[in-house]
Amino acid sequence: MERTKIVLDDNELPRQWYNLAADLPTPLQPPLGPDGQPVGPEQLAPVFPMNLIEQEVSTERWIDIPEEVLSLLSIWRPSPLYRARRLEQALGTPARIYYKNEGVSPPGSHKPNTAVPQAWYNKQFGIERLTTETGAGQWGSALSFACSLVGLECKVFMVRISFDQKPYRRLMMEAWGGTCFPSPSEQTKTGQAILAATPDTPGSLGIAISEAVEAAVSDSTGKTRYSLGSVLNHVLLHQTVIGLEAKKQLEKAGEKKVDVVIGCAGGGSNFAGLAFPFICDKINGAEIEIYPVEPTSCPTLTRAPFAYDHGDVAGMTPLLAMHSLGHAFVPEPIHAGGLRYHGMAPLVSAAAVEGLITPRAYPQLKCYEAAVKWARTEGFISAPETAHAIAAVIDEAEKAKQEGKEKVIVFNWSGHGLVDLAAYDAYFQGKLVDHELAQEELEKSTAVLDNLPKPSTAKTGKW
Amino acid sequence: MERTKIVLDDNELPRQWYNLAADLPTPLQPPLGPDGQPVGPEQLAPVFPMNLIEQEVSTERWIDIPEEVLSLLSIWRPSPLYRARRLEQALGTPARIYYKNEGVSPPGSHKPNTAVPQAWYNKQFGIERLTTETGAGQWGSALSFACSLVGLECKVFMVRISFDQKPYRRLMMEAWGGTCFPSPSEQTKTGQAILAATPDTPGSLGIAISEAVEAAVSDSTGKTRYSLGSVLNHVLLHQTVIGLEAKKQLEKAGEKKVDVVIGCAGGGSNFAGLAFPFICDKINGAEIEIYPVEPTSCPTLTRAPFAYDHGDVAGMTPLLAMHSLGHAFVPEPIHAGGLRYHGMAPLVSAAAVEGLITPRAYPQLKCYEAAVKWARTEGFISAPETAHAIAAVIDEAEKAKQEGKEKVIVFNWSGHGLVDLAAYDAYFQGKLVDHELAQEELEKSTAVLDNLPKPSTAKTGKW
Repeated sequence: MERTKIVLDDNELPRQWYNLAADLPTPLQPPLGPDGQPVGPEQLAPVFPMNLIEQEVSTERWIDIPEEVLSLLSIWRPSPLYRARRLEQALGTPARIYYKNEGVSPPGSHKPNTAVPQAWYNKQFGIERLTTETGAGQWGSALSFACSLVGLECKVFMVRISFDQKPYRRLMMEAWGGTCFPSPSEQTKTGQAILAATPDTPGSLGIAISEAVEAAVSDSTGKTRYSLGSVLNHVLLHQTVIGLEAKKQLEKAGEKKVDVVIGCAGGGSNFAGLAFPFICDKINGAEIEIYPVEPTSCPTLTRAPFAYDHGDVAGMTPLLAMHSLGHAFVPEPIHAGGLRYHGMAPLVSAAAVEGLITPRAYPQLKCYEAAVKWARTEGFISAPETAHAIAAVIDEAEKAKQEGKEKVIVFNWSGHGLVDLAAYDAYFQGKLVDHELAQEELEKSTAVLDNLPKPSTAKTGKW
Repeated sequence: MERTKIVLDDNELPRQWYNLAADLPTPLQPPLGPDGQPVGPEQLAPVFPMNLIEQEVSTERWIDIPEEVLSLLSIWRPSPLYRARRLEQALGTPARIYYKNEGVSPPGSHKPNTAVPQAWYNKQFGIERLTTETGAGQWGSALSFACSLVGLECKVFMVRISFDQKPYRRLMMEAWGGTCFPSPSEQTKTGQAILAATPDTPGSLGIAISEAVEAAVSDSTGKTRYSLGSVLNHVLLHQTVIGLEAKKQLEKAGEKKVDVVIGCAGGGSNFAGLAFPFICDKINGAEIEIYPVEPTSCPTLTRAPFAYDHGDVAGMTPLLAMHSLGHAFVPEPIHAGGLRYHGMAPLVSAAAVEGLITPRAYPQLKCYEAAVKWARTEGFISAPETAHAIAAVIDEAEKAKQEGKEKVIVFNWSGHGLVDLAAYDAYFQGKLVDHELAQEELEKSTAVLDNLPKPSTAKTGKW
């Protein structure tokens, strides 16, 4: 029988995370404070526990995964690597397409890969409670899941309109014992002020971040911290188990060389999780094309400048050196909520500036078309975010067919879409349209960057 | 690192299904037609393809799984066997608890284990279209998934009230290319007549079955057949991959003896899938307690007589020898829709009559309590049906603690509850109550059995 998937035993889980910061040709540029000076670890201490801050600033190549974290990760990891044989056949491509199935985690995406270690490190540090924000709910549910495993309280501020319209992820959080507040809420001064001024506001991710950070830093017991689901270095670090496992599995499948690596990119963490171990190979001389895929409605890597900008809309976070559409940019309300972020992880942005990765943007209709083809060949229903990666995979497979080349394509199937089926419904009913960000809107939204410090763009550029 | 799960490679998939009919001490009693005479294969031919009818009546112990079916099953099989270490620890039990995770299939339950072979055999037989009914949508989505893989049309008649209130499963069917009609529909004479008489009816499973069977047998091209997701012998046969895999995995885990086997039971198929290979061991002398778990609101095995009864409400199907609450019985509308069936698979019923299995009934609040404990220890959110098995597992683990015995408990985690979260919400809000079927209601609903033929109850009774 031809193999459909390559599974690994619990004891084949990677024992270390891979830190791309150790191998970037040009060192990562530091986050800056309000004074324009680099932010030191101690300034982050009210927000994150010191053991995670150490990971955030580390330039060690390999960081050990604690034994207890491995045991918790083994609830769903190693995730299976699949060969997409039925899709290959339907396309008639000579390419061999492989994908990591990150939908096998209890909340259904790659998010718990970092939620679990973050919760564990906070617990180790003596923290009793985590706060976070969530849009459609993927991250909030992953963190609630993680907190229930290690025994932490979890408070999630969920954008009001999603809280009202998308109850399933909120119910997941509650099943895991998390508390979910519609944001703006009465829980914080920020929320109270906004509710007083605009009682009917639908909320925004920017407001929810402000509430979550305030709830963490204002706890006078000092036992509360904040947790973020993407963008930061330690978050991307935790995701690298995906790529490290994939490399073992490809070896077991008899593949000696990978030609193309693909992942969708919002804040950058699922893409980084698969891609970073392959970027390491590329830095060491391997010929690999690596594509982060974003929506044309939020073209951070493909069209926005590399700049210093805030991670949040309200400007509460340090300035990060990254590709950014401007921190006040509000993307179209596409269903792929996880890709609606104005910035991009500094590590992913740096890899793009170095020319190590080649960003692509896709309009949404092509992504749903790809996801439907996927469901009817490979069988799994994809998250709308994941659909962006699939669209690029199909393009690459068709290119391989035209070229007559037996390419090996690997991508990250970052999550299932079982609680995102309303997006498919809208697609089938013809209610979705493509959005291309207009040049003048881009210029308007990135104008805020002019008044902020500029990162150095001197790069080795040898890729 | 302690093992959390035991995975198998694609090539360790069982190559044959196990047929309990070969080993039952007393032969299975045949289905009867309207004339009270045994129904022959040819009488079933308008409804099912002959290759499946052959399986339905077979008494061969092992039936080969075709290579192409194995390849399709390998999309999600072998499913992982988990050790529920965190639950064990939370309970402080000396029992070792294992579970098969059937939630890894694309539709999220055990149902595709039979949907895929049924679709494949129909395709082999030259059929172009399958019809079926569905309540909450688990079975309809599984069959749509299977039809998309083998290239069959799929028509699903979904009980109107579920069609309106539970859109996610319908949207899944559509993502896989199936067509889903609210039942009663304009598609059939039965549906038209009911709509004419009662345009606002919420529909029922009985009506939906009638529509699906009519849509199959009335197709003048002869290219349409009907498909059923539980109860029948060939359906249970296909599910035995669960138990056969579990035995291999327990051996790999170093377990030499299993003490307790548990599964929830509605029509009987997920229970049978895990339990039948262990019942085989029991027939051959092994000491194993085997518990099918049903709701107290629908106590088919625990309180209903073993009788001849119709499989459907309208009395269109042959009479089956089974435990039955009477074909007109309408269970309370509990969220565990998959357990709301008046009858029980003839093979499971026969095993109960033989004393090979020991049925149990649980009230729903205890099941949700168990499911919440499960979510917060093992991490996975369970289907409401599966929660019934978990409640019994926890009782058995606590019994083992009281007895100070290192028992090995194995159960079937039949599906996830990600699209059933409304049930959890109702539970958390205190909206659910327990239902115990009143004795007089039982007597009333089983009165219809008095006018039907009686099965023989002469059994060897040596267990």
